[in-house]
Amino acid sequence: MSEPLTALWSARSIAVIGASNSASALGRLPVEFLQRYGYKGTIVPVRPDGADVLGIRSVRNLADAEEPVDLAMILLSADRVPGAVDDCVAAGVPVVIVCSSGFAETGTTGAVAQAELVERARRGGTRLVGPNCIGSVGVTNRQVTSFSPLFSGDRTELVDGPLGFVSQSGALGYGAVSLAYERGLGLGWVVNTGNEADVNAFEVMNALATEPGCEGLLAYVESLDDLDGLRAVASSGLPVAVLKAGRSEAGARAAASHTGALAAGDRVADAALRQLGIARAADVEELLDIGETFAQPRRPAGPRVAVVTTSGGSGILAADAIEQHGLELARLSEETVAVLDEIVPAFGSTANPVDVTATVMSRPDLFDRALSALVDDDGVDIVLACFCVLTGKDVDDVVTGLDGAARRSGKPVLVARTGADHLAPTASRRLRAAGIPAYPTPARAVRAAAALHQVSTRREVDNTAIDSPGPTTATMNPGVPPPAHGAGESELKALLQDAGLAVPTGQLVTSGEDARGAVGHVGGRAVLKAVVPGLTHKTEAGGVLLDIDADTAPEAFEQLASLGGQVLVEELVPPGVEALVGVTASPLGPVLTLGPGGILTELVDDVALRLLPVTTEDVEEMVDQTRLGKLLRGLRGAAPADRAALVESVVRLAAVVESWPAGFSLDLNPVTVLPEGEGVRILDAAYIAPEDA
Amino acid sequence: MSEPLTALWSARSIAVIGASNSASALGRLPVEFLQRYGYKGTIVPVRPDGADVLGIRSVRNLADAEEPVDLAMILLSADRVPGAVDDCVAAGVPVVIVCSSGFAETGTTGAVAQAELVERARRGGTRLVGPNCIGSVGVTNRQVTSFSPLFSGDRTELVDGPLGFVSQSGALGYGAVSLAYERGLGLGWVVNTGNEADVNAFEVMNALATEPGCEGLLAYVESLDDLDGLRAVASSGLPVAVLKAGRSEAGARAAASHTGALAAGDRVADAALRQLGIARAADVEELLDIGETFAQPRRPAGPRVAVVTTSGGSGILAADAIEQHGLELARLSEETVAVLDEIVPAFGSTANPVDVTATVMSRPDLFDRALSALVDDDGVDIVLACFCVLTGKDVDDVVTGLDGAARRSGKPVLVARTGADHLAPTASRRLRAAGIPAYPTPARAVRAAAALHQVSTRREVDNTAIDSPGPTTATMNPGVPPPAHGAGESELKALLQDAGLAVPTGQLVTSGEDARGAVGHVGGRAVLKAVVPGLTHKTEAGGVLLDIDADTAPEAFEQLASLGGQVLVEELVPPGVEALVGVTASPLGPVLTLGPGGILTELVDDVALRLLPVTTEDVEEMVDQTRLGKLLRGLRGAAPADRAALVESVVRLAAVVESWPAGFSLDLNPVTVLPEGEGVRILDAAYIAPEDA
Repeated sequence: MSEPLTALWSARSIAVIGASNSASALGRLPVEFLQRYGYKGTIVPVRPDGADVLGIRSVRNLADAEEPVDLAMILLSADRVPGAVDDCVAAGVPVVIVCSSGFAETGTTGAVAQAELVERARRGGTRLVGPNCIGSVGVTNRQVTSFSPLFSGDRTELVDGPLGFVSQSGALGYGAVSLAYERGLGLGWVVNTGNEADVNAFEVMNALATEPGCEGLLAYVESLDDLDGLRAVASSGLPVAVLKAGRSEAGARAAASHTGALAAGDRVADAALRQLGIARAADVEELLDIGETFAQPRRPAGPRVAVVTTSGGSGILAADAIEQHGLELARLSEETVAVLDEIVPAFGSTANPVDVTATVMSRPDLFDRALSALVDDDGVDIVLACFCVLTGKDVDDVVTGLDGAARRSGKPVLVARTGADHLAPTASRRLRAAGIPAYPTPARAVRAAAALHQVSTRREVDNTAIDSPGPTTATMNPGVPPPAHGAGESELKALLQDAGLAVPTGQLVTSGEDARGAVGHVGGRAVLKAVVPGLTHKTEAGGVLLDIDADTAPEAFEQLASLGGQVLVEELVPPGVEALVGVTASPLGPVLTLGPGGILTELVDDVALRLLPVTTEDVEEMVDQTRLGKLLRGLRGAAPADRAALVESVVRLAAVVESWPAGFSLDLNPVTVLPEGEGVRILDAAYIAPEDA
Repeated sequence: MSEPLTALWSARSIAVIGASNSASALGRLPVEFLQRYGYKGTIVPVRPDGADVLGIRSVRNLADAEEPVDLAMILLSADRVPGAVDDCVAAGVPVVIVCSSGFAETGTTGAVAQAELVERARRGGTRLVGPNCIGSVGVTNRQVTSFSPLFSGDRTELVDGPLGFVSQSGALGYGAVSLAYERGLGLGWVVNTGNEADVNAFEVMNALATEPGCEGLLAYVESLDDLDGLRAVASSGLPVAVLKAGRSEAGARAAASHTGALAAGDRVADAALRQLGIARAADVEELLDIGETFAQPRRPAGPRVAVVTTSGGSGILAADAIEQHGLELARLSEETVAVLDEIVPAFGSTANPVDVTATVMSRPDLFDRALSALVDDDGVDIVLACFCVLTGKDVDDVVTGLDGAARRSGKPVLVARTGADHLAPTASRRLRAAGIPAYPTPARAVRAAAALHQVSTRREVDNTAIDSPGPTTATMNPGVPPPAHGAGESELKALLQDAGLAVPTGQLVTSGEDARGAVGHVGGRAVLKAVVPGLTHKTEAGGVLLDIDADTAPEAFEQLASLGGQVLVEELVPPGVEALVGVTASPLGPVLTLGPGGILTELVDDVALRLLPVTTEDVEEMVDQTRLGKLLRGLRGAAPADRAALVESVVRLAAVVESWPAGFSLDLNPVTVLPEGEGVRILDAAYIAPEDA
C-alpha cells in the first residue's frame, strides 16, 4: 500500500496480538467483532499457547503468520507492548494499533516508555497508532479493529456513509459513533488515535481525504498543534468539521491532565480553524448535525436561507437562529412572492419565513409549487422546511416534493421536524435517502446549515504570497532582522522605521538641556518617556509626560530620569484612532492580533487573530471583524481615519516578522491612526525575545 | 369551580360543538380522542341533526344538554362561531375553546370579528380560549380536548408528570408535546392559547401554578406584554422556563405577521425574564431539557458543579460548558480528593472533572464511594455524571449509585450519556424513575443545570420598596413632575436638579456679552451649547464648543446662535468616566438602561436593562453586568470614580420618573462620574414625551 494508514480501514490481513477466548478479556473482542460484522480478510490471532481463538487458528509468534500482515492490534499489558512492537517491526507490519494503556496518560514514567515505543517502531518503519486507544473501523471492508462495547450491542449495525471520523478520545469517540449509527448517519471510516505518540488525528484525516468515497471529515480533538497537518486537511477540498475540546480554561486544564496534550490558546484554535475554512462544533451533537450536511451532495453558493413552514412558530425560531448564526433570511423576488400569493391562504405568510399553513400541506401540488418557487429564486441559496407534528400519511408527499426541489436546483434543502419520530416512522429514513438532512428543531438545522455555508465558501488558503498594495512594495524591506535581546523602545522603533513603518520622530536625551533642544527638533511640543528596561506599564508608572514644551522640558527630564533609565523625546502625535497590533507565538506558529488599542484594549477585549502569513484581504477582514472598523469610519462626527495606511502597515509588519525566529512576542499599542491621508504612527512598541517568552 | 380555567384540564363534562362522524373532519377528533384516551366525564357532541357521534348521543343545541357543561370546544367555520359562543354564554358554560381559525391572524376584518367574539363571551362571564388554537390536555383527567394529529398516532400515549406546558403556537406546541412524551417527559397539563383574544398564556400558567401536583411551568410565547401576568407567574414559587420566540429582528417581524402579536424589544424581554427569575430557552429542545430538571425534586443551593466521568473527553466538554453557562467547576475539599486518590487509578484524574476511568466503573463499590465523596462535599451543589457507551449490564449499578447519592444529599444529580440508547434500553426509564435527568451530551446537561440554578436562586421580586441609601432619602423629591412637552436641555436640567440630581452650573444667555459674564459665573472656563429644538446630535452638528474662556465667549456665542436657537453656558466639568442612564417605554412598562456612555455607547453597545422599580442592589448589579464596573474602578492607573454617587443618582432618577405618565423616553448621556467623593454631573439630557414617542 502506498499510504500505510489505509490499513486502519482496508487491511487484507489483521493480527490480534493478545487474542483471547476469555469472555471478560479485551483481547477477545476484536476477533469476535471481525467475525460478527463479516470481515472478509485474514484474521491472525497471536498468543503464546497457539490455541484457537473463537475457532480461528492462532500463531505463537507473528513471525509464524502465513501471509504478510497489513495491520496488527496489540492488546497486552503495558510491560509486554515493547516486545510486541519489536515483533511487528521484525515482521514488516506497516501499521500497529497499540490499544494498551499505561503510557503517557499515567505520568512521566509512562511518557518515557511511550517515547521508547515510538522509537522502536520508527526504527523499523512501522507506524504506530495509540497507545491508549480503542482502534478503528472500515465499514466497506467490514473491519472492526476495535474493542468498543458499542460493537457488542444486540442491535448495533455498521452504517456506511461518505464521512470519515477521527477522535483522539476513545470512549467519547465511540459514543459519538454509536449516536451517529443510531440516527442512521453513516460513518464509513472511524479511527481513534488515543495518545498520538506517532500518528495524529490530522495525519489520519489526510489519509482519509484521499480515500475514494470519502466526502467529508469529522474530528474530535483535544490538542491542535500540528499546523502542517491542519493545513493539509484544509486544502484537501473536503468539508471538515472539528470538535475542539478545551475551550474554557478549566476545560484546557482538564485536557492537559487527560492525554497530556497542551491545549493551544482557544482563541488561536478558533482563529486558525476559521481561517482554514474548517467548521468548529461545540459538542458531539453539533458535530454530527454538521456531518449530516456534509453527507448530502449539495453545497450552498451563499448565506441566504428561504424558510418554508407549516407553523408560524417554527418560522420565527428559524429566523432567530438564522440571525444568530450569521446567515441571512433571503429576500424573495417579486416573481416568487407573486407565485406564493396565489398559493398561500390569508392566514399564512408569503414573506420569508413563508408560512404555507396546514391547508397547503394537505394539497401536495400546492406545496410543490410553493417549494419550486422558493428553490428557483436566484436570491435563495438554502431552503429550510419546518414541520411540526408530521404523520405517516404526510411523508410521501413531503419527501417527494423536497427531493425534487433539491435535485432540480442543486441547492441544499434541510428539514426541521419538531415532532415525535414515531408519528411518521419512515420519515427519517426517507429524508436521509433523498439527501435531506433532518433535525428536531429549526435552531439545530440552521446551526448545521451555517457550518456547511462556512466550509463551502472558504477562500483558497494561500500559504505564500503576501498581497501587499502596489506602491509600497518597492519600499518594503522584509529583510529587517529581529530586535536584539533586551531591545528597548527606541531601538525597536528604529528597527520598525527601517522596515518602512511610521514611528514618531524622536531621540534619546541625557540631560535637561538636551531635552529642551530635542523638543525643538520634534516640533516644539513633545512627549517625554522614561525608557527603563522591564517597565512595561509606563503610563501607570508615571513614565510618560504629555505635551511638554521647551520650557517644561528640563523639569520633565529630571522627573523621568529619576525612574532610573533613559529618556526619549518624541514628537507629539495628534489624537487619532488607537489600534493594537501584535504578533505572538502559539503552538500553531506566529499569530497576528489586531483590534482597538489604548484604553479600549482592556475595556472591550476585542481582537481578531490570524495565523501568519496574511494577505491584505485578511487584514481588511480583521479590521471589520472588530470594532476597529467602526472606529476608523469615525464615530460621533469624527473624520474617517486612514484605514488604508493601517492595513498596509499591518501587512508590512507581518511580512517583516516572517523571517524572525519563532517564539517572540511583539506588541504595538497604541498605533495611532490619523485622519485619511495622514498615515499611522506607532506610539509604543514592546518586544519579548523567544528566550524570554 | 372557583377558577374557571381549570376546566381546560379538569372538566367533568365537555361539549364538542361541530362534532362530526366524517373521517376527514376536525370535529370528529376531540370526540375520538376523549374516548380513546379514557376520559371519564361526560362528552356532549353538539350538531344540528342530533345524530350520534362515534356512538355517543349528541344534542341539537347546547341548551338541550342534560347536565351543566364545564367546557365547550367550538370547531365550526369562522362565520358560525359567534352564534356558538352566544349559545355557550346562554348555557352558562364557564370556558369555551374556539379552535376555528379566520380571525385576527387573517388581518383587520378578522381582528374585528375576534374583538366581537370576546365581547359576546365577556358579556356573559364566559372565558374564551383561542381562537385559532388546537385545545388542551389534562392527563390525570384523561382529557384530550384537542384535535392535534399527535393523538392519532398508533404509539402515542399520554405521559403524566409534574409539569404544565402552555404554548401560543398550536402546531409547534403539540410538536413539542410529542417530543416530550416520546422522551418520557411527563407534561400533565397542556394548553394552546392561539390568538389569545381573551385568555393569555400567563393567565393559564397562573391557574396551573395553583394546581396540586404541578411543580414546574414551561411555555412557548411570541409576545411578552402582560407584565402583571408575568410577575404573578414569577411569584408563584414554581420554577418557570419560557421559550420566547422573536429574538432577532427578522424573527420579531415574523412573529408580528404570525399571530398579530407585537414583539417587545427582545432585550427588554430578556432583562424582564432574568429579573423575574424565569429561565429563557432558545429552542424547543432546550425548553424540554430544562423541563427535565424541573421534573425532579432537588434544587441546587449554588452554581458549583462536580463532574464525574469515565471519559476524559466528556469531562473537558463538561468543563467548557460549565464556564460558558456561568456555572462553576467545584473546588473539591482535601478530604474528597483524599478519598478519590484511594479509588482512582493513575491514568484517571482526581481533580474536578474527576475521571474515574472505566476501571472504577467495573467496580460498583468504588464508583459508589467516589460518587459519595463528591456529593457529600460541602463545596458541591450539583453533580454531573458523564458516560459514553453505556451498556445494559452497567445500568443497574450506575442508576443505583446515582439514585442513592441524590437522595441522601438532596443535591441534583444529572447524567450526560453520549451513546446510543439501544445499547442500554432500560437506562432512560430507570434514570427518569430515579429523578436523574439524562442528556445526550455534557453541553446539554450543563445548559439545563444552569437554568435550574437560575430559577432556584432568584431573589424575591420586590414590587414596591425603593431601597435608596439612607443619607440622601431626606433630600429626595420623588414628587418632581414630568418635563413639559418640548422641554429643552436647560429646562430638563433644572428639573433634574430639583429632583436632587447633579447637573453642571449653567445659564441661558442671549448675547455675546451675556456669554462672557456667564463664563465668569461658572468658573472662568465653560462649555457653550446650542439649544435648538429637535437637534439631538449636538456634537456632530457643531453645536458644542468646549473650553471657552471669557475672551472667546462672544465669538463662540455668535457661532452657536447662528444654528437658530438659544445658547447655554455651562461650567466645564473635568473628564471622568462617562455613563449612559436612560429610561424608555416598553410593552412591559418603563425600562431603566445603564451602561458606558459617550463615545463608548455607540462603540460597545453594552447596556444593562431592568424593569422599574429598581433597588440599589439592582443598580449595583447593572453596573457590574456592563463594562461600567471596570471603567469605574479605574483603567490604566486612573483613579477610581464615584460609583456610589452614580448608583445613588440612578436609584433617585428611577424613583423620580415612577410617577410620570407611561410612554416617555429620557436619555442622560453622558453622565460624567468624577473621582471618588466628587459625585456625578449630568452633562446632557434629552426627553421625548409620550405623545411624541
